[in-house]
Amino acid sequence: MTAAGAFDDWTRTVQAYVEQALERALPAAGAEPRKLHEAMRYTVLGGGKRVRPLLVFAAGALFGADAGALARVAAAVEMIHVYSLVHDDMPCMDDDDLRRGKPTLHVAYDEATALLAGDALQAQAFAVLSEAGDIAPARQLAMVRLLALAAGPAGMCGGQAIDLDSVGQSLTLDQLEQMHQLKTGALLRAAVVLGALAGAELPAHELAALETYSNAIGLAFQVVDDVLDATADSATLGKTAGKDAAANKPTYVSILGLEPSRELAEKLRCEAHQALAPFGDKALRLRELADLIVQRKA
Amino acid sequence: MTAAGAFDDWTRTVQAYVEQALERALPAAGAEPRKLHEAMRYTVLGGGKRVRPLLVFAAGALFGADAGALARVAAAVEMIHVYSLVHDDMPCMDDDDLRRGKPTLHVAYDEATALLAGDALQAQAFAVLSEAGDIAPARQLAMVRLLALAAGPAGMCGGQAIDLDSVGQSLTLDQLEQMHQLKTGALLRAAVVLGALAGAELPAHELAALETYSNAIGLAFQVVDDVLDATADSATLGKTAGKDAAANKPTYVSILGLEPSRELAEKLRCEAHQALAPFGDKALRLRELADLIVQRKA
Repeated sequence: MTAAGAFDDWTRTVQAYVEQALERALPAAGAEPRKLHEAMRYTVLGGGKRVRPLLVFAAGALFGADAGALARVAAAVEMIHVYSLVHDDMPCMDDDDLRRGKPTLHVAYDEATALLAGDALQAQAFAVLSEAGDIAPARQLAMVRLLALAAGPAGMCGGQAIDLDSVGQSLTLDQLEQMHQLKTGALLRAAVVLGALAGAELPAHELAALETYSNAIGLAFQVVDDVLDATADSATLGKTAGKDAAANKPTYVSILGLEPSRELAEKLRCEAHQALAPFGDKALRLRELADLIVQRKA
Repeated sequence: MTAAGAFDDWTRTVQAYVEQALERALPAAGAEPRKLHEAMRYTVLGGGKRVRPLLVFAAGALFGADAGALARVAAAVEMIHVYSLVHDDMPCMDDDDLRRGKPTLHVAYDEATALLAGDALQAQAFAVLSEAGDIAPARQLAMVRLLALAAGPAGMCGGQAIDLDSVGQSLTLDQLEQMHQLKTGALLRAAVVLGALAGAELPAHELAALETYSNAIGLAFQVVDDVLDATADSATLGKTAGKDAAANKPTYVSILGLEPSRELAEKLRCEAHQALAPFGDKALRLRELADLIVQRKA
């Protein structure tokens, strides 16, 4: 089998396994309050590239983490990610109608249900991550705290707040980078580190290497998002294309231009690879995920 | 000093101590993103009766819990409570302008900031509760899970969803009770049990006694809320009075009538007292809090 074939097989296997974990972690569709449960399931199940779960499993492979533990970690991180999309899409935020090729939750249901389903998903993420299992309790507690900090005002919510304030502003490249390191970077970093911690306590130098990798792919992810937003169509993206320019939001493309943005993404991909050097062959999947993030078309 | 004087002193001491814990648990006002941080502080600090923190401390007293641990637990529970108020007050939910005598967060700031500040408060609650301290890690992990379950679809968010669906419906008394056991009861129960767990692992019969107490005061809290909503004015309540009737929401007063609702509250107060009998004098503050909940005027 080719390397690409093996990677594709691995991603499909992880995606299917995570889908099952999400299915188990979500409240049953038939139970009351039915509308809330259905809304949670509508937005979480059956869609998305599952980049964060793939990072969780790839990082877990470095430290021999148990697949069941990784599935719970991946489900928790993905539920935080999905709730943030649901709330970001609401009329008072980005007001978007299309996500993962489907109507957004407040369009398919209503705003109150979208607000509540997002809130419930965040709570459920912490319920799943704090479920007793095989991880040493003190380490698992540190993992809960790491996810909470990545999701909160010093992480994802903080980045989203800076993003809101930046509409119509001219940001420097540093300010743009800082915003994305919080808005999307914090949760991607959490996915990598939590995956690793599901396997073992990390020595400081290995934690630092994983953080360098995570920062590089986090930025690359956003640079590529901006390139795709400027060049792809909505059908390919599964979400509204060109909306950053329409909203007068600063992007890598608007600050650097298209070709330099592509070059930056490639440079970040190389940085990510270099950071993984100490892990040798065990980091194969993390390297391939860096490639996937930079080379994706949607 | 009279018993009432001693209780008032105790509540003021706990409230001041919890205020400091909340102050520490919130991001600094001067740091970026400033608007998000200010919004979180606006809505959390300097207001509210702090019923849930008082329950945390009163229950902690039964098992000799450390004051620092209780303060973190109380701050976490209160942040969950406050975030739920912020989101409930938004235009797509109850659309309320007044809370704790101040403009609600989306009125004082804007809807996007209210949405985001609520999300950030929920994350911060779990960050505070998972901070490493003196509690045995396995027990602390169970406490995180307990709060997450109380806040999620099987708790507060689930109750809120039932509430949304109930507007204009005629509920039976059982259905109304089930809604409130989730919407407000789950978090009140969590406050009591988490306060106790901050001190020690609970034997099953003591946990059961605390749950009976919590269920009684949780329902009493709601019955009294409904009585006050029907009888007090907005200035006294610090929130919009008469809004349940205006929204055509089923309440204890609309189902039972005013005087039977008052009698039910008194009956629940007695049940709460009875449940505490096994704890003897140590449960004094929990008994007084049951009285406070039933006899409050706002």
